[in-house]
Amino acid sequence: MKLPPDYVSGFIDGEGSFFIVISKHPQKRLGIDARLTFAVEVRDDDIEILESIRETLGCGIIYRLDYKRYGWFPHALLKVSSIGEIRNKLIPFFVEHPLRAKKRLSFKLFCQAAEIFAQKMHLTEEGIAKLREIQKQMNQYGKKGGIPSVRQGAGKPRARRGENSVK
Amino acid sequence: MKLPPDYVSGFIDGEGSFFIVISKHPQKRLGIDARLTFAVEVRDDDIEILESIRETLGCGIIYRLDYKRYGWFPHALLKVSSIGEIRNKLIPFFVEHPLRAKKRLSFKLFCQAAEIFAQKMHLTEEGIAKLREIQKQMNQYGKKGGIPSVRQGAGKPRARRGENSVK
Repeated sequence: MKLPPDYVSGFIDGEGSFFIVISKHPQKRLGIDARLTFAVEVRDDDIEILESIRETLGCGIIYRLDYKRYGWFPHALLKVSSIGEIRNKLIPFFVEHPLRAKKRLSFKLFCQAAEIFAQKMHLTEEGIAKLREIQKQMNQYGKKGGIPSVRQGAGKPRARRGENSVK
Repeated sequence: MKLPPDYVSGFIDGEGSFFIVISKHPQKRLGIDARLTFAVEVRDDDIEILESIRETLGCGIIYRLDYKRYGWFPHALLKVSSIGEIRNKLIPFFVEHPLRAKKRLSFKLFCQAAEIFAQKMHLTEEGIAKLREIQKQMNQYGKKGGIPSVRQGAGKPRARRGENSVK
């Protein structure tokens, strides 16, 4: 079900995250892999709202996160990491239906980072340095004021590879 | 600044809480005090969005919470506990601009509880028993599936009396 666009902006201002992931990757030319990610995570029994948000945004993949070994309820995660979808769907959506809380500042930096990817600068040393600078600024807006994590909730364990199963 | 109403519904679906507080109160006839509360809490540097939400809802008081001794950032809390404001402003707002995630179920129970207050049933043993029953159902929808708290975030310390200063 499609949602009122302003509803989605409000929900994302509270619950969404924009971030840059820069990791080691020996197979890549610079030995570094850089990616942009938009994510919003809810308890698994609230997955329907993620499905509606995905339909309204017109992009994203929903994952189910099993936090059993932490004694947590399972969660559901809507994630957009495709640079094409980020540039052609996600960013235009939030330009048209703006975020209004502090998260709008993260989004602004996320848009700057997307420009670097658009120009293929993320494949150069110079581009990676710029992305690291933007990432540092974005982390200031996180709940913990600097510790990057999918959701930055207090005490939230990070999902490990293999724990997630694509829906 | 007033916000698009759907934006507020989206934000509250992510970040808001509806709850019933039932506590001992020797001065009251039954020795019990029952109250309804709507609350939404953000980091203090995001207080402007709470001010805009208050303006859009047309009710509520903003408190500042000093979590210094927990090593947390200070927070800001928008709270509506006046039964008149809940019945005449808050509830009509969310009836007109509906919540769409699981929180809509808490809201529905909150409306049932407001009806008990409207009929002054909260001053009777029977009414308190009904409120306790509704409270139990509402707690099932919380993040921890049953532990009542202002925000039910993982590891979040509760504000103590005297730590809050009215803005």
